[in-house]
Amino acid sequence: MVRRASRVLAFSFVGALVGCSGADRMGPPCPAGSGSADAKPVPKPTYALHGDEGMWLLNEFPAARLKELHGFEPDQAWLDHVRLGAVRLSVGCSGSFVSPSGLVMTNHHCAHECIQQLSTKAKDFVAAGFYAASEKEEVKCPGAEIANLVEIKDVTVAMNEATRGLTDKAYADAQRGAKNKLEQECSGGDAKLRCEVVTLYRGGKYHLYKYKRFQDVRLVFAPEAAIAFFGGDPDNFNFPRYDLDVSFLRVYENGSPAKIDHYFKWAPSAAKAGDPTFVVGHPGSTSRELTISQLVYQRDVHLPERLIELSELRGVLTEFGTKGAEQARIANDDLFGVENSIKALKGEHGALTEGAFFSDLEAQENALRAYVQATPELAAIAGGAWDSIAEARKAYRAMRGAYDMLERGRGFRSKLFAHARTLLRAGTEAQKPNNERLREYSEANAQSIRSDVLSEEPIYDEYEVLTLGYSLTKLREVLGPDHPIVKKVLGDKSPKELAASLVKDSKLKDLKVRTALLDGGKNAVDASNDPMITLAKLVDGDARAIRRDFEEKVQGVEQRSGELISKVKFQVYGSTAYPDATFTLRLAYGKVDGWTEPGRTVPPFTVIGGAFDRATGREPFALPKKWLDAKPTLDLTVPFDMSLTNDIIGGNSGSPVLDKEARIVGLIFDGNLHSLGGEFGYDPALNRSIAVTNTALTHALDKVYRAQRILDELKP
Amino acid sequence: MVRRASRVLAFSFVGALVGCSGADRMGPPCPAGSGSADAKPVPKPTYALHGDEGMWLLNEFPAARLKELHGFEPDQAWLDHVRLGAVRLSVGCSGSFVSPSGLVMTNHHCAHECIQQLSTKAKDFVAAGFYAASEKEEVKCPGAEIANLVEIKDVTVAMNEATRGLTDKAYADAQRGAKNKLEQECSGGDAKLRCEVVTLYRGGKYHLYKYKRFQDVRLVFAPEAAIAFFGGDPDNFNFPRYDLDVSFLRVYENGSPAKIDHYFKWAPSAAKAGDPTFVVGHPGSTSRELTISQLVYQRDVHLPERLIELSELRGVLTEFGTKGAEQARIANDDLFGVENSIKALKGEHGALTEGAFFSDLEAQENALRAYVQATPELAAIAGGAWDSIAEARKAYRAMRGAYDMLERGRGFRSKLFAHARTLLRAGTEAQKPNNERLREYSEANAQSIRSDVLSEEPIYDEYEVLTLGYSLTKLREVLGPDHPIVKKVLGDKSPKELAASLVKDSKLKDLKVRTALLDGGKNAVDASNDPMITLAKLVDGDARAIRRDFEEKVQGVEQRSGELISKVKFQVYGSTAYPDATFTLRLAYGKVDGWTEPGRTVPPFTVIGGAFDRATGREPFALPKKWLDAKPTLDLTVPFDMSLTNDIIGGNSGSPVLDKEARIVGLIFDGNLHSLGGEFGYDPALNRSIAVTNTALTHALDKVYRAQRILDELKP
Repeated sequence: MVRRASRVLAFSFVGALVGCSGADRMGPPCPAGSGSADAKPVPKPTYALHGDEGMWLLNEFPAARLKELHGFEPDQAWLDHVRLGAVRLSVGCSGSFVSPSGLVMTNHHCAHECIQQLSTKAKDFVAAGFYAASEKEEVKCPGAEIANLVEIKDVTVAMNEATRGLTDKAYADAQRGAKNKLEQECSGGDAKLRCEVVTLYRGGKYHLYKYKRFQDVRLVFAPEAAIAFFGGDPDNFNFPRYDLDVSFLRVYENGSPAKIDHYFKWAPSAAKAGDPTFVVGHPGSTSRELTISQLVYQRDVHLPERLIELSELRGVLTEFGTKGAEQARIANDDLFGVENSIKALKGEHGALTEGAFFSDLEAQENALRAYVQATPELAAIAGGAWDSIAEARKAYRAMRGAYDMLERGRGFRSKLFAHARTLLRAGTEAQKPNNERLREYSEANAQSIRSDVLSEEPIYDEYEVLTLGYSLTKLREVLGPDHPIVKKVLGDKSPKELAASLVKDSKLKDLKVRTALLDGGKNAVDASNDPMITLAKLVDGDARAIRRDFEEKVQGVEQRSGELISKVKFQVYGSTAYPDATFTLRLAYGKVDGWTEPGRTVPPFTVIGGAFDRATGREPFALPKKWLDAKPTLDLTVPFDMSLTNDIIGGNSGSPVLDKEARIVGLIFDGNLHSLGGEFGYDPALNRSIAVTNTALTHALDKVYRAQRILDELKP
Repeated sequence: MVRRASRVLAFSFVGALVGCSGADRMGPPCPAGSGSADAKPVPKPTYALHGDEGMWLLNEFPAARLKELHGFEPDQAWLDHVRLGAVRLSVGCSGSFVSPSGLVMTNHHCAHECIQQLSTKAKDFVAAGFYAASEKEEVKCPGAEIANLVEIKDVTVAMNEATRGLTDKAYADAQRGAKNKLEQECSGGDAKLRCEVVTLYRGGKYHLYKYKRFQDVRLVFAPEAAIAFFGGDPDNFNFPRYDLDVSFLRVYENGSPAKIDHYFKWAPSAAKAGDPTFVVGHPGSTSRELTISQLVYQRDVHLPERLIELSELRGVLTEFGTKGAEQARIANDDLFGVENSIKALKGEHGALTEGAFFSDLEAQENALRAYVQATPELAAIAGGAWDSIAEARKAYRAMRGAYDMLERGRGFRSKLFAHARTLLRAGTEAQKPNNERLREYSEANAQSIRSDVLSEEPIYDEYEVLTLGYSLTKLREVLGPDHPIVKKVLGDKSPKELAASLVKDSKLKDLKVRTALLDGGKNAVDASNDPMITLAKLVDGDARAIRRDFEEKVQGVEQRSGELISKVKFQVYGSTAYPDATFTLRLAYGKVDGWTEPGRTVPPFTVIGGAFDRATGREPFALPKKWLDAKPTLDLTVPFDMSLTNDIIGGNSGSPVLDKEARIVGLIFDGNLHSLGGEFGYDPALNRSIAVTNTALTHALDKVYRAQRILDELKP
């Protein structure tokens, strides 16, 4: 699954291997004036793209390179059409318009939360699938939002002006203020718009993205989880694969299906091996521009710690799910997300710890640093930037526990707590001038906050106690039982005891109570003695303090230094690079292609018959009854899933795969195991994205689901 | 808790920082004849012990250094007495004789398994504690064994002769054969003896240890887990501390308490800050002699992977325990072990990834390697040894999954499966000449195998299904669903389904069935169609094959190269070093001492009153009722726990703390958080072991437990 994981920042460079220590050695470059660096001139490192590498900006697209590689040069109209046909799902996914009546295609796993929320103990749509045979049967997804990128504007100059010469708190404040202001001017308070200043090239550029928002999103069709995620966690990120990971949603305006100008038509047949393919979507984050000190942090701290925490949670959720069918149903979406993250993060950790990948990245950085040091005008710009970042990472190591637990909320895994904090902060922040507010509480985000807090997604007491109790145990474990915040939070209670009493006594499950507190603002929240609000108040000062520390001593420093490194990279390499993924729209080009690895050659296509061969009848290799029943009517030779060279990552889930005519030939839902190293760089020999073919989609809609209404909309 | 973790191999060196790359750089040394190594002579690195560092062999004890540091030089009689008063527990712990009637003192957590096994749904001795008010109330611990080291002999020459000039399979076979033969000659088939060839200095020396075995071990006294492990996982490895982590066992011979000549008397008062202290016990394993390539493996692969797997298991066991009091009781001992391992392994991972520890170790190795390369007679011995080890680690990376899952049994976490495999292998191996058998099935180990298989420890179906189902899921996850072994094992079944049917249908729970299969040997096992035996047969060929690969391509290579590195280390540093821990008897000297770290100074003693101050009434900070009731009669100023500079590690749990007269002043049960880096080196400023004081033990036995019978035995 390539659902978006968590945000990080990132270039992929190949430099001549050079430096103080010789071609086979790694480490920081020699200090100026020392050793071999003086002995010979330092060559200028070069930058090379690898094959179909790149998650390209729609407004800075390398059309010439595409022509060179795939013989096709898109014009501006093609690029605009592709941009406008793409959508972003607030759940962390991508999608596309596939009809003029607002029909949106995305993955099943991107609509999983909605499908689960619409399910009840009596009717489990995750297991049984969902199909609205008529428009009036289409059901609203609680809290869902779909956004369509209508405009991109470069605001680098304005952003740089705002922070010129500033450092620390002043830098962080000025940057936040400038972003809030630009976004507010862009949306003009129109609740139907969402504007975002996007930081690209780690501070090298800033673009302002304007989205049209759709908040009435309804579920139209979802197959059974058993075929959407056939093979389950064992097959996740594997290929060959046999998944129909699709769902159809529809955006509504004023109670009717929205009218859409730019949508993607259906290609009349499947792509063939070697055909060029285009993936437009929202890769969540990559770390290709990180410095070595940041990568060491990923390798030694971040990835192991996240994996350890998620693995324990996986065990808890798995075993909770054995308590009964209802518990299994409730835990299912989170467990699914946790297992997907674990597999993805393991792949990332493996990329940094196996083979020569890490040492190659070290060599690239060393080559660039050596050249910068040896070139006075570059050294003047960014000579100290790498060390500044290393110092900031050191500071972050010391604060990470408190930051994760208190501000990121890992110590308080609870929907009720999340509501309590949002209500508390919404009340407080609303009293400040817009440019002084926390980013997520700016004017431009008021509507999002409102829909978050007033979301109708169900809250289950037993599950709340489970996750909150678990996370309070982690709070105590990470900060230590003697930490003043831990003592303040737990008092004499055990984590589980506290969780149980909070969940039992809080009234925030009641939408009316949350509405009153949101509308009542700060005064109402101040007056509330709801125990979850009281807990949020108890830790908010500490959480804000550690966030301030993080923003000033880590994020601010890394962004300022990142900006300087980007400047010298532009000068050294030219501007042929793409920025790290930022969960904003990108276009990746490639082709239908399998790969060869030691011991096997993997062809690019599977066929429907393969699913029947692989089925064991047992979870997670059990085909749904509808498929077994439909087997005699199916053409088992129809292509099912396919592998592509397009460079994607988590967040691209649900992206359409387009041909040169911008017609749908597939639907991205995963990458292969090798693609997990894509976090840090692209390997053209092995990195592959995985998609459902257009033919499998229509064949299943026709023969298995008899979903004629949808087929009628999906016209070639 | 410092219960033994898993075995590894290991010197702690400080070399002058020198090499190709300069004092602040890390990495392999320059190739001979290149760069700066030629430019100036390479200095001879020196070896320095840090403060009270060292887990010393009893037969190679540095008495002169001890005199220099602590003004006390023990004679041979003192060393012999200390050796003979110490015992080893098969569960992975240490202990000591404390009376002439076979009374053994160890930790509560070392007897935890026994206490749990003696408990039933109706009577939970883990929660309530246990006290045999008379000899006849002392109850046998199922499967427990206590060993007392009666003789040590150097067999290095014989071992080196056996493998001279051999490599690969021939080396591994010859080494295994020589060990089996030496051990068999030593025990002469006497079931009361256990002989072991111990590999020291990673192959530098071999010693033959002869133990007297006690297999009738009975439980005499254990306090409530709530005071033995007061503060639970949150306080584990922390100090200040308030734990009474003690249990008393008794070894019997011929149905009566064994008569013991060498036992430790009770010191009449508590030690004082600065008093010299001696810890005799069995540190399990350290990694201080590992090469950098082996440490990188620990940092990047072994530690993260173990932590991830154990964390998931932790989540599973925690949540299983919420299903009912009986489930909690059953899962308790494993959960306890898992949480203890997680905390210890996190500390080890932190030691390799925080601060300058790892780069210091790299600098030491680089200095030694540079000197060896520059010194032809040393280069001739071990010039290629480090690279051979790095290659072997690379081979191990590729085979680790299959080795862990199949041969180490991580894919089959089940007592029934363990019995099945032991029965299968015992039958097969018994037909081979002794020196060709798998090490653990040699003649010398026949008695241990018998008591393992015929252990009366309870087996709980629900728990077996849980752990076996979990581990089969990991088998599929690690090897992949398409691995032939996975397909062979699971067939069309899900892991949980297979586990349930195996546990339901296997008859191995029945001690009579196991006895018949053990006594019937290979023929009986061949004829058995018990499903668990069938599973063991199904995977045994694969498991043996991967073990052979491991022994020949990894273990053999690393041991041969380790032997060569040890040789040059002895030549360069002299023989003032101690070998890595090997779960064999060691003596560590030190003193009562607290420590200072940023933000706090920790005094060396806590007092009994501190436990009452820390108690919240909630798990794991709830004092037992007996303690609350006894409070008015207690002297709250009596020293409770104390911190010492003695260099210990997991496996030392239950070790006595002795004064210069070899009298008991305490009982080791833990180390502080800083001690966890002790896996890789000793930091005299911060590394501390933690013990219960003699005074807390007797005060509690007297006032809280009224255990007069024990007090009468513990005489000053």
